[in-house]
Amino acid sequence: MQDNTVTHVPGFKAGAIKAGIKKDKLDSAIIYCPTGATWAGVFTRNQVKAAPVLYNQALLDSQETVKVIYSSSGNANAVTGQQGFEDTLAIANEIASVFNCKADDVLVNATGVIGVPLPMDVIIPSIEQLPESLSEDGGKLVSKAILTTDTKTKTVAHTFGVSDVEVHIGAIAKGSGMIHPNMGTMLAYITTDVAIEKALLQKALSDAVEVTFNRITVDGDTSTNDTVLVLANGLAGNPLIADTNSVEYHTFYEELLLVCENLAKQIAADGEGATKFVTVKVDRAASEPEAKEIAMAVATSNLVKTAMHGNDANWGRIIAAIGYSGVPGVDEGSISIAFESRVGLLLVLDTGVALDFDNDAAVELLDEDDIVIHIDMGQADGNCEVWTCDFSQDYVKINADYRS
Amino acid sequence: MQDNTVTHVPGFKAGAIKAGIKKDKLDSAIIYCPTGATWAGVFTRNQVKAAPVLYNQALLDSQETVKVIYSSSGNANAVTGQQGFEDTLAIANEIASVFNCKADDVLVNATGVIGVPLPMDVIIPSIEQLPESLSEDGGKLVSKAILTTDTKTKTVAHTFGVSDVEVHIGAIAKGSGMIHPNMGTMLAYITTDVAIEKALLQKALSDAVEVTFNRITVDGDTSTNDTVLVLANGLAGNPLIADTNSVEYHTFYEELLLVCENLAKQIAADGEGATKFVTVKVDRAASEPEAKEIAMAVATSNLVKTAMHGNDANWGRIIAAIGYSGVPGVDEGSISIAFESRVGLLLVLDTGVALDFDNDAAVELLDEDDIVIHIDMGQADGNCEVWTCDFSQDYVKINADYRS
Repeated sequence: MQDNTVTHVPGFKAGAIKAGIKKDKLDSAIIYCPTGATWAGVFTRNQVKAAPVLYNQALLDSQETVKVIYSSSGNANAVTGQQGFEDTLAIANEIASVFNCKADDVLVNATGVIGVPLPMDVIIPSIEQLPESLSEDGGKLVSKAILTTDTKTKTVAHTFGVSDVEVHIGAIAKGSGMIHPNMGTMLAYITTDVAIEKALLQKALSDAVEVTFNRITVDGDTSTNDTVLVLANGLAGNPLIADTNSVEYHTFYEELLLVCENLAKQIAADGEGATKFVTVKVDRAASEPEAKEIAMAVATSNLVKTAMHGNDANWGRIIAAIGYSGVPGVDEGSISIAFESRVGLLLVLDTGVALDFDNDAAVELLDEDDIVIHIDMGQADGNCEVWTCDFSQDYVKINADYRS
Repeated sequence: MQDNTVTHVPGFKAGAIKAGIKKDKLDSAIIYCPTGATWAGVFTRNQVKAAPVLYNQALLDSQETVKVIYSSSGNANAVTGQQGFEDTLAIANEIASVFNCKADDVLVNATGVIGVPLPMDVIIPSIEQLPESLSEDGGKLVSKAILTTDTKTKTVAHTFGVSDVEVHIGAIAKGSGMIHPNMGTMLAYITTDVAIEKALLQKALSDAVEVTFNRITVDGDTSTNDTVLVLANGLAGNPLIADTNSVEYHTFYEELLLVCENLAKQIAADGEGATKFVTVKVDRAASEPEAKEIAMAVATSNLVKTAMHGNDANWGRIIAAIGYSGVPGVDEGSISIAFESRVGLLLVLDTGVALDFDNDAAVELLDEDDIVIHIDMGQADGNCEVWTCDFSQDYVKINADYRS
């Protein structure tokens, strides 16, 4: 049976338990690599960082390898002051004792409500159940245990070749609201058995995150806990990748990129209340950063996203968003806009000229669950694509009573 | 009877008709000052500006006085290319002919759907009905005719003293979605009979807009058509205000400020789908611009606004927004957060320490239609207050099928 998760990769086990942070739901998970794995991480740029984020970040430079990712859901351990750090450390110590490793071999993550101390009275005693939860195909359980308002698990795995050996990569993610570049409330854990130097693993991850997880938006809100981690245990046996100009590095990077892009799109598609996946594709802007700025302004606009929800080809809201994006030199006379779905392509604005179109045809085209908004700025060669979802009443329903 | 609108001011008449842009609704309005009035204007900073906005802006420097504000709703005349400018000019010419004035005496405004040419076949013939629609108390009709998705008219009027003479000021506004600083889809028309130099009127208006209309947000979207106009016909007979340091200038400025603040708050309270008015008050930030940046990040957050809708004292979302606001040096350990309504005040975060609070009491406090979110940054003396509304499912309902 295909294991489309982190346990697709030899040398990794995983498991999850009901610790009691949530009511009778899987809420605590572990990914375990007994041989130790070279690791890299990318963390939220929100200035308010949760205690576990700061804990992992502190290990990033000093700790070459790690053995455990612990991840709990239901409580973010953010804005919990000194207590938050002490709790994180206590968890790492307890895991180290149960798994017979050092505390520095343990990465700790959390997601959930901000500002409430972790329920340590249930977490600490639950940790001794973690080893027996581990299995060779436990990634699926982990992908469930890390969810909050997500409606679906997000998983992906590939097998590919590097230096004539078979290499595996597997990943899981969570994220549904507070999704915005720099990243959203999202966690992603990637495992691989490639052998690669730590600095190169970090470069590959940072580069891949920039063009994948940093190009999704659900609601413009970024979170305190976002974390992407990759663990590479080297068991594939390829000669150590140590040169960013090598074919092997590029092969691995391309696979990592595909994994990140795949997860990022799964997250956007499962945005809170989402009923459709929306790609905003900007071509021929003055530069790539400007193309991204324009695409993000459009993808973040509540008005554009509600129009997509209502199958409304209201391109006026798109051009208004372009106009306030902050990019200089916007000339409406050079802009073209089209909508695309599997039904077809509909050009609605042609170099500044509004086209007559059949509204019934537009509704039919937009009444699909995968929509592309094409924006041609007609300026130069800056291109960028970002991913989002439509905006439905359920977003409000979900977020108006998340705590209760 | 108190006329709480632009026709509160002697020398101004107003009226509105059903031109046929909308189906059987008031959609075309006029404010008329036969003696001519000194004027000032503030316009959208969106780079995509509607044709009438560009038309009025072009008149701002060259035209000392105007006699007519024409304002239609249902169609924004934005992104309509050369045709949009020709249509604006044709409207100004037709009004000039009907009112026996010059085209340069006429300001033209529009609000509504973007990218659709104005229905000139119904607009031009309707203009001859405008003179007979005028009345001494027609401001109320104008306040209705300019609405789009607004649920309420927005009006205010004061009488005050300058140099021992009685001076009047009256105003109307519209705006409900696409409301964000620099401004939203909003129109505001202010009349007064004060005698004031044009440059000072412009300064007073620009200063007042900066701290009122530029401090409201509904959905983070700014529009192509935003316009605030003030017309001062001088009929009060006060000695011409010509010095920004004079008591008279300050008296007038304070009244203008009150009028703008009052309208801005009415607009925020009537945000699309709004069920409550929310003030975000930031104190002791590093500076006033930083206080504004923080307040705006919080007031724009969909997650904060849905929490307010759900009576959820979820201050974690507030501190997350502070963290991504872009202001440097955010230290969660110095931040305090409280919620206030007429029920009372509830401190939930005290210099970085989360306080236990009774959730039922919090729900009772937030289940009011006027909420204040207090944020004390504990840094220096930068203060700012901005106004917004909660975010309900009706926002989505309204915007998912605005065109249909």
